Amino acid sequence: MLTTKKTIRRQFILDEAAKLFKEKGYGGTSMRDLAGNVGLEAASMYNYIKSKDEILELICQRIAGIYISQLAEIEQTPQATYAAKVEALIRLHIRLMVEEGPAVSVANHDWKYLPEPQLTAFKQARKSYEQGFARLIEQGVAAGEFQALHPSVALFTILSAVRWVELWYRPGRELSAEELENDIVAMLLSGLAK
Amino acid sequence: MLTTKKTIRRQFILDEAAKLFKEKGYGGTSMRDLAGNVGLEAASMYNYIKSKDEILELICQRIAGIYISQLAEIEQTPQATYAAKVEALIRLHIRLMVEEGPAVSVANHDWKYLPEPQLTAFKQARKSYEQGFARLIEQGVAAGEFQALHPSVALFTILSAVRWVELWYRPGRELSAEELENDIVAMLLSGLAK
Repeated sequence: MLTTKKTIRRQFILDEAAKLFKEKGYGGTSMRDLAGNVGLEAASMYNYIKSKDEILELICQRIAGIYISQLAEIEQTPQATYAAKVEALIRLHIRLMVEEGPAVSVANHDWKYLPEPQLTAFKQARKSYEQGFARLIEQGVAAGEFQALHPSVALFTILSAVRWVELWYRPGRELSAEELENDIVAMLLSGLAK
Repeated sequence: MLTTKKTIRRQFILDEAAKLFKEKGYGGTSMRDLAGNVGLEAASMYNYIKSKDEILELICQRIAGIYISQLAEIEQTPQATYAAKVEALIRLHIRLMVEEGPAVSVANHDWKYLPEPQLTAFKQARKSYEQGFARLIEQGVAAGEFQALHPSVALFTILSAVRWVELWYRPGRELSAEELENDIVAMLLSGLAK
């Protein structure tokens, strides 16, 4: 078990690593750059983290874990409409990009540098998430809540539609994160509705 | 003036170049690779095209020109509703990605390697296109056709939403290009509608 202090320090290193990967690319970032950014000697940093591969793995696993666990929770909410379920997932995507921009960016772009078997595990987790999300859309169409769209077309249109938030959103923009989120949600949910 | 035969040969070289840039990256493609792909000696190819920079410039200019001229045409159609105008632009984006995938991919990703002054000209053309598209959305909101969304949020949600077609669409998928286009258009237009 990691002590709390060690866990907090490790998460700080992971957060700084995500920022560096986003800024300089995964390939363009060295463990020495990272040590400089977190204010540690490279040798001390290895007490917290073994390698760049391990950092990438931990970031991708954490983000994938958030999506998977939220989907599972939403699937097990029997009273909600399909629109409410899809809305919860769209809001999750936008909020994660606003609140955890660098980590989401790493999970969106740098996952391809994962070594095996983590690469296969990550791709399977993503596929299983996409299938679960598409199933909610399919069930919403079957229940007459949504217009008769191909579930995979609707799914990828939604996932792609929210992606620009990653490139655009910076704290201090004239639009608040809530206004941004509400407009995108309003557009995508009206887009699905029958 | 280029002779017709020379123009056709040159367009063939540009099309092959776009495929190579998409496959191997702009930086990873050499003029020698390209000559091999079009079946010419490198020396003969220089009769048609001066450099990799010139190829990139011609591809980006052509794609930007299509968007700009279509927008101008649509802006000058006084009878149409704003929904019809926006629909025409969304269909243009999807069709260009289906029919001219590699060239659109180059204009979407590799424009950043353009040398100056072409880089600035390309960025200005793109900005002017985005402003014109956002103006149509703003006018549609003002006319009561669209729900009260921030025009720039609606614009980037639409532009981002159609982007996945670039990665997904291959001829021979179980869904036809028309079905794909119609589903995305149905979703995005219902999303805008009041």
